[in-house]
Amino acid sequence: MPRRPAYRPPKIPEMTIRRLSVYTRCLLQLEEDGIKTISSQDLAERFNLNSAQVRKDLAYFGEFGVRGIGYYVAGLKAELQRILGLDREWPVALVGFGNLGSALFHYRGFSRQGFRIAAVFDDDPAKHHREVGGVPVFPARELAREVRARSIQIGVVAVPAETAQAVTDQLVAAGIKAVLNFAPTRIRVPRDVRLKDVDLSIELETLSFYLAKGSR
Amino acid sequence: MPRRPAYRPPKIPEMTIRRLSVYTRCLLQLEEDGIKTISSQDLAERFNLNSAQVRKDLAYFGEFGVRGIGYYVAGLKAELQRILGLDREWPVALVGFGNLGSALFHYRGFSRQGFRIAAVFDDDPAKHHREVGGVPVFPARELAREVRARSIQIGVVAVPAETAQAVTDQLVAAGIKAVLNFAPTRIRVPRDVRLKDVDLSIELETLSFYLAKGSR
Repeated sequence: MPRRPAYRPPKIPEMTIRRLSVYTRCLLQLEEDGIKTISSQDLAERFNLNSAQVRKDLAYFGEFGVRGIGYYVAGLKAELQRILGLDREWPVALVGFGNLGSALFHYRGFSRQGFRIAAVFDDDPAKHHREVGGVPVFPARELAREVRARSIQIGVVAVPAETAQAVTDQLVAAGIKAVLNFAPTRIRVPRDVRLKDVDLSIELETLSFYLAKGSR
Repeated sequence: MPRRPAYRPPKIPEMTIRRLSVYTRCLLQLEEDGIKTISSQDLAERFNLNSAQVRKDLAYFGEFGVRGIGYYVAGLKAELQRILGLDREWPVALVGFGNLGSALFHYRGFSRQGFRIAAVFDDDPAKHHREVGGVPVFPARELAREVRARSIQIGVVAVPAETAQAVTDQLVAAGIKAVLNFAPTRIRVPRDVRLKDVDLSIELETLSFYLAKGSR
């Protein structure tokens, strides 16, 4: 079994965290394929990763490889899930139930990783106090009460840019500790709240960078 | 004016490209606020960036700062837009017009950066040969013809996981050079096609990592 040192928090690059998520997906795939152990080279080759990067990323958290064997797929997967907080369920508040909110609500990736949308908030009265897939929809003014009652720590903001800050302020006031913001605007949170902006056009810009480079 | 050396492509980290997008947004904001020049320190402070990182990222592309002045906001913005390929319009094919496709279609961030959805493809016959916001909706079987006719180089995949690979293969066959994949599955493209997977649950996992770390 891999040695498991006591966890001490070093300064870990966010890209390493993102890659741990990717490795976890790869290990799940290997497990489905019935593979019990794999070397970092084979892991890298199979999923188009960088084996030196894999080893460096994992080294932040311990020594998981076993000489002559490689990684135990199930063990490493469980370990990464624990590190990423995926060994538990996270109730999530989704604010905004337009097209994007609906898409996020039905996004299978969330529930698969333990993120359960526990309450939806939207200011369209037609949607209030109905349920979507068993999840209640509330007006935004009930946000504080419902977030507290459901011990929600993560909020997903999928409202228009104009209302994103106000909605985020309400989430923070209700005790939310992490916000995933899809609104195309910069919002501010207090220091003790984690904010992650998802700017979908940045993804397109990494593509246009390479296309433009190719045409220069 | 900043010195502008001939462009030679070094190996540039993808995170640098992503940050150039962020800097471009900051510069647009400064321009709107009527600010003509700014030091890297002020830029960093105002937008919560790392000033050493800003200088290092920009250094891949030239020397943009002017001693005693800092950056010319309009000049640097134009330069970054050129580097990111945002000084032109990119016609985009959107495949899949469910909730996520609709959300992406209406996402203002895309058009603001020069990405114009030029054609939508969906297999729901009820949507065919109609227009949404002036953009025609086609059945997927017309993909090759329309992509070629419209000189589309970028495809956005917003279909369910099961059909993502088939749709991508069609896009590639039609001559697409870059694919932005929102389907929660791994797809494969030939070596000369750029693929960018957007896995929305990875964003949530960087948040749960920090929440879990705080609770350990």
